[in-house]
Amino acid sequence: MYKSIAVVGATGAVGTIILDLLAKRNFPFQKIKFIASKRSAGNKIIFKDKEYIVEELQPSAFDGVDLAIASTPDDVARDFIPEATKRGVLVIDESGYWRMDPDVPLVIPEVNGDAIKNVKKGIISSPNCSTTQLVVALKPLHDYGQVKRVVVSTYQAVSGAGLVGTRDLENGSRAELNGQSYNYECFPYPIAFNCIPQIGSFKDFGYTSEELKLLHETRKILGDNSINVCPTAVRVPVANCHSESILVETERKITVKLARELFAKMSGVIVIDEPAEKKYPLPNICTGRDEVFIGRIREDISSDNGLAFWCVSDNLRKGAATNAVQIAELVNK
Amino acid sequence: MYKSIAVVGATGAVGTIILDLLAKRNFPFQKIKFIASKRSAGNKIIFKDKEYIVEELQPSAFDGVDLAIASTPDDVARDFIPEATKRGVLVIDESGYWRMDPDVPLVIPEVNGDAIKNVKKGIISSPNCSTTQLVVALKPLHDYGQVKRVVVSTYQAVSGAGLVGTRDLENGSRAELNGQSYNYECFPYPIAFNCIPQIGSFKDFGYTSEELKLLHETRKILGDNSINVCPTAVRVPVANCHSESILVETERKITVKLARELFAKMSGVIVIDEPAEKKYPLPNICTGRDEVFIGRIREDISSDNGLAFWCVSDNLRKGAATNAVQIAELVNK
Repeated sequence: MYKSIAVVGATGAVGTIILDLLAKRNFPFQKIKFIASKRSAGNKIIFKDKEYIVEELQPSAFDGVDLAIASTPDDVARDFIPEATKRGVLVIDESGYWRMDPDVPLVIPEVNGDAIKNVKKGIISSPNCSTTQLVVALKPLHDYGQVKRVVVSTYQAVSGAGLVGTRDLENGSRAELNGQSYNYECFPYPIAFNCIPQIGSFKDFGYTSEELKLLHETRKILGDNSINVCPTAVRVPVANCHSESILVETERKITVKLARELFAKMSGVIVIDEPAEKKYPLPNICTGRDEVFIGRIREDISSDNGLAFWCVSDNLRKGAATNAVQIAELVNK
Repeated sequence: MYKSIAVVGATGAVGTIILDLLAKRNFPFQKIKFIASKRSAGNKIIFKDKEYIVEELQPSAFDGVDLAIASTPDDVARDFIPEATKRGVLVIDESGYWRMDPDVPLVIPEVNGDAIKNVKKGIISSPNCSTTQLVVALKPLHDYGQVKRVVVSTYQAVSGAGLVGTRDLENGSRAELNGQSYNYECFPYPIAFNCIPQIGSFKDFGYTSEELKLLHETRKILGDNSINVCPTAVRVPVANCHSESILVETERKITVKLARELFAKMSGVIVIDEPAEKKYPLPNICTGRDEVFIGRIREDISSDNGLAFWCVSDNLRKGAATNAVQIAELVNK
């Protein structure tokens, strides 16, 4: 069991939820510390009725720490994590920087929890938010029928862009409703009442970094490079929770009835699928929840072995904080 | 040439734009009248600097009319159109009611303008908004490479639900930002800062009426029942313009370069596709425009002959009013 733990990026959108989860789930520790960038260092944090001062992110902050759960930008993770691991810390990292390193396990506990045995660099990565909910949904289908191909279009919330994304949507919407203009801090175009078909930067073959994560991370987590993915990642003016329109083609046919059973048995999945009652997952009802929600399950009417469905999950929770804390619980066992 | 024309549903979201287009495009007529439901009858309309009184929708209103452009709910179209055609009126109908009738041509002028020769019942239907932009995009790909399969996920604006949809988004967003509640008039769940994966009612195989239109209307307009479509229709908190994430599989391979050329040559299509410059179609820049905008054109990395792209169009214009007026211009030739 890890005794001295640190939360890095403790004041961010994901960090705040990590704290909440550690408290609510009674994560065991003897010592805990909260680390953030220089800007937030010195701030006070109340955790389990006790006050802590946020420490600045620098190598010496990790002296004596056993386990760190970190949610920082990629370039920050690139720089600080080797300093932490050098000091013997096991880092559970939310950033994208280490995910595809062959010596770093990329873990969703319900899907590939065993991968934590392969820690070689003192780092375990937690997948990208849009990948996590996709892979949790794919896992039972893959186990039963071998996923060959996935076509996924995302409807991603602004909270995925951090607190500044949430602020942009609120301020931008308010301005738009009042006929005023607003200078967006983090989006290249207005997100209020609009859709932006770009998340991350453009990489190979006209796909964005966010889209390619849906391919590469999925393959790594499921341990199967034969899976093909055609991803489209879109930012929508939703406050929180990513939604995904998913089409899966499998080697072995999966009927709607069977898919419902497979999903229902999958740990961390909740099926909401009663179309006649207008029941299906919605961002506003899935926010604040730790599970992956699936509905609109139907046979693909355009292929023989295709299954289409709608998947919603809280991108700050299962897509980030919850998954990281679940990894921490797993390594603690 | 048709001399006496009528606009039915003249006070609605689409009707208002039909009037605007008839004026701006100098649509020829000797007499014009404006018809609407009892609720709006008696209202005044200014058209080309002249004042008109809105007439109530009843059979006698069509006496002496040659050509009507109608935008009404399906049940209204079901009832009034036979009365109008009985009086010799050619009706260009925006509603969904007559579209799949084998004796009614379903027309997008750039795609299947010749179909107007097959008018048998005095009715020409204009397709559903989400179908029109999809089919305009598919047409040049189909002509070159034979479309076999389409996977489409939509991001549909509230204006598609009429003026009440627009009001719901505005009032709902305002309430949400102020921490207040709001009773939605036309959506089953809050649309502000949310996504609703249901448009229309649930029909066969777990698909909604809106989704099945994307299959059946596409086949009818392109005159090819071998085309398969897997549709997912989602309402998003966007004011105006539908967006679509489209994956097309063709018999004959279409490269990105060729697709750009085919799209660029297609009448009514504008390609905005410079990812490095962050240039792609966005609802807020396509609103008020009559064309179909295409960007994010890339090879499908999950199949051999697949092409993925992003398509945005003003659902009230090319998706409705513009297409109807273009049909009227075509029959006038």
